Amino acid sequence: MLSSDDKKKYMQLAIEQAKTAEKQGEVPIGAVIVDPDGQVIGKGYNRRELDEDATQHAEMIAIKEACKHLGMWRLIDCSLFVTLEPCPMCAGAIINARIKDVYFGALDPKAGAAGSVIDLFAVEKFNHHPRVIRGLFKEQSSQMLKDFFRAIRQKQKLTKLQQDGSQKD
Amino acid sequence: MLSSDDKKKYMQLAIEQAKTAEKQGEVPIGAVIVDPDGQVIGKGYNRRELDEDATQHAEMIAIKEACKHLGMWRLIDCSLFVTLEPCPMCAGAIINARIKDVYFGALDPKAGAAGSVIDLFAVEKFNHHPRVIRGLFKEQSSQMLKDFFRAIRQKQKLTKLQQDGSQKD
Repeated sequence: MLSSDDKKKYMQLAIEQAKTAEKQGEVPIGAVIVDPDGQVIGKGYNRRELDEDATQHAEMIAIKEACKHLGMWRLIDCSLFVTLEPCPMCAGAIINARIKDVYFGALDPKAGAAGSVIDLFAVEKFNHHPRVIRGLFKEQSSQMLKDFFRAIRQKQKLTKLQQDGSQKD
Repeated sequence: MLSSDDKKKYMQLAIEQAKTAEKQGEVPIGAVIVDPDGQVIGKGYNRRELDEDATQHAEMIAIKEACKHLGMWRLIDCSLFVTLEPCPMCAGAIINARIKDVYFGALDPKAGAAGSVIDLFAVEKFNHHPRVIRGLFKEQSSQMLKDFFRAIRQKQKLTKLQQDGSQKD
């Protein structure tokens, strides 16, 4: 049973993963997986652009690492902490891996599959239904994403101004 | 534009992948990805048990291989052929990779995310909507799975009979 302090600690680790992504120019999303004894057995950050691979989301990397660590595809009684609501692919992987608890930070109104667009965890016919805890470090997780996209827009604006300037020269 | 013969050829390749899985004791599911010129750029078969990894479905392996081949995470104008209706994880990965056309064989009434349980490809809010062509080599794809599970049940029955016999001795 994870304490309230434990949960904060693991979400902070997921945020650290997200910051690692950001430093490398990736959209800042991070995840960690914790076994029932509180040991971190998987971690990952979004590497879609770095690896040029559509499946390289933070959760997928963390799940693969946790499966390898345990030597089994069932991550029974494990918890996943992720800074952003999982997309359908990651929510599906969470179901496939039988993860027990999913803690996430920011909502994803465009692709969220844990309630925002659809709720895959609530589909009765599926053979596993993780428990979902929303909004842990929501503001911090969300702010990281906002800052990242604002910086991109500013960079694009600056590039455009420079291009317009050089055309006038 | 793929011809009718092309489509059959690629689905046969997916079935061959499924048979490779079966030979290794895996549930027989196979997939291939074809670029707009008809070149096979990714293939995969279910390796969940072999790799002890919940994410190692046929489609995921094929998508990863195709991304690597093209050096980009967008598999624009590519087609995926798979023997079984994709699960939510794989349907989500297909959306994330922007795959254009999805051909599948057998329906999956327990976990199918292309119409059987839910239809992720029809969710309006998502930013990509692959075209889905159902039922190509449906019987063959379905029969492979039925034969596989029948063989498993027979093996389990035989083992039980042997155990009961040895207890009576």
